[in-house]
Amino acid sequence: MAFIDLQNDLPGIRGPMIYRPETGTILNELAEILLHDEDNTLSRGDREMIGAYTSYLNDCFFCQNVHGAMAQHYYECDTQFIDSIKKNFLSADISDKLKSLLTIAGSVQKGGRYVTSEQIEKAKSLGATDREIHDTVLIAAAFCMFNRYVDGLNTWAPKDMQVYIDRAPMRAKEGYSQLGLTK
Amino acid sequence: MAFIDLQNDLPGIRGPMIYRPETGTILNELAEILLHDEDNTLSRGDREMIGAYTSYLNDCFFCQNVHGAMAQHYYECDTQFIDSIKKNFLSADISDKLKSLLTIAGSVQKGGRYVTSEQIEKAKSLGATDREIHDTVLIAAAFCMFNRYVDGLNTWAPKDMQVYIDRAPMRAKEGYSQLGLTK
Repeated sequence: MAFIDLQNDLPGIRGPMIYRPETGTILNELAEILLHDEDNTLSRGDREMIGAYTSYLNDCFFCQNVHGAMAQHYYECDTQFIDSIKKNFLSADISDKLKSLLTIAGSVQKGGRYVTSEQIEKAKSLGATDREIHDTVLIAAAFCMFNRYVDGLNTWAPKDMQVYIDRAPMRAKEGYSQLGLTK
Repeated sequence: MAFIDLQNDLPGIRGPMIYRPETGTILNELAEILLHDEDNTLSRGDREMIGAYTSYLNDCFFCQNVHGAMAQHYYECDTQFIDSIKKNFLSADISDKLKSLLTIAGSVQKGGRYVTSEQIEKAKSLGATDREIHDTVLIAAAFCMFNRYVDGLNTWAPKDMQVYIDRAPMRAKEGYSQLGLTK
């Protein structure tokens, strides 16, 4: 049960977002532009994967499953593939460029000062643009916020993984704007 | 020097905010509502202090000095008082309620799962409302994002502490909306 009375029984981040819609709207706008906006050379799948991986590192059950399911939807893969990236992306069947971006995301998760110039140069040498590096850092940083918001208030999350997978197509279609602000 | 070409020489978070105004606008709106909005029973000084303390724990030089100077402005105190809170708030001359909220912020900085029901009950017993606890968690979580954004891109920050102190009154007057989006 959540630490405060959220006045609704919605799972995960949706509970506090409705409880405080003034900030909920802004957080959804941030998710929309970082993860769903079409004006981005990083695929939606890769952006969701960066968020899911950061959430995995932060041990946030709700976020890693919501966004893991989103990546799974965009990649058109199975859950096992997403898990293989979370657990050991260096051995996963993904591009070297995405591996370099996930390395940066992993450093951001520990703290901003953990990102090294070598990690950045590696990403650039594999074709990552400045804007893609910027977005990788901000997506990982944003999930360090979302994860703490979700777990710091002790919100609940559905245990059944299928729930997350079933919701992903609708979320992919609708995006994040206004999500959770209507019951 | 920043890891990517930000196409401007502004310090701290202002550099990447101008580089990517689509997200910069949203981040400023979040800072505005969490730290500056008048519709809050937590004082502006206390909210800035929660941000400064979280930034101190994250070792983010730019953010801890910007927001430490803001708290100093609102509290009408000296830098030594702000430092005494950052370094050992339990011994500082602040209310027990603020101490309980800074305890929660300190847990959020480590990770959402570090917040305990005992910490929440303590805050409630000292008069903290649900909304105040919500905002404390979200402010601390948001600074875990801001700090990572600032340092993960290796932005530069003025070394002279007086720069931060001198800017605080203007920022207190103007708020955060649109900050950094005009050069």
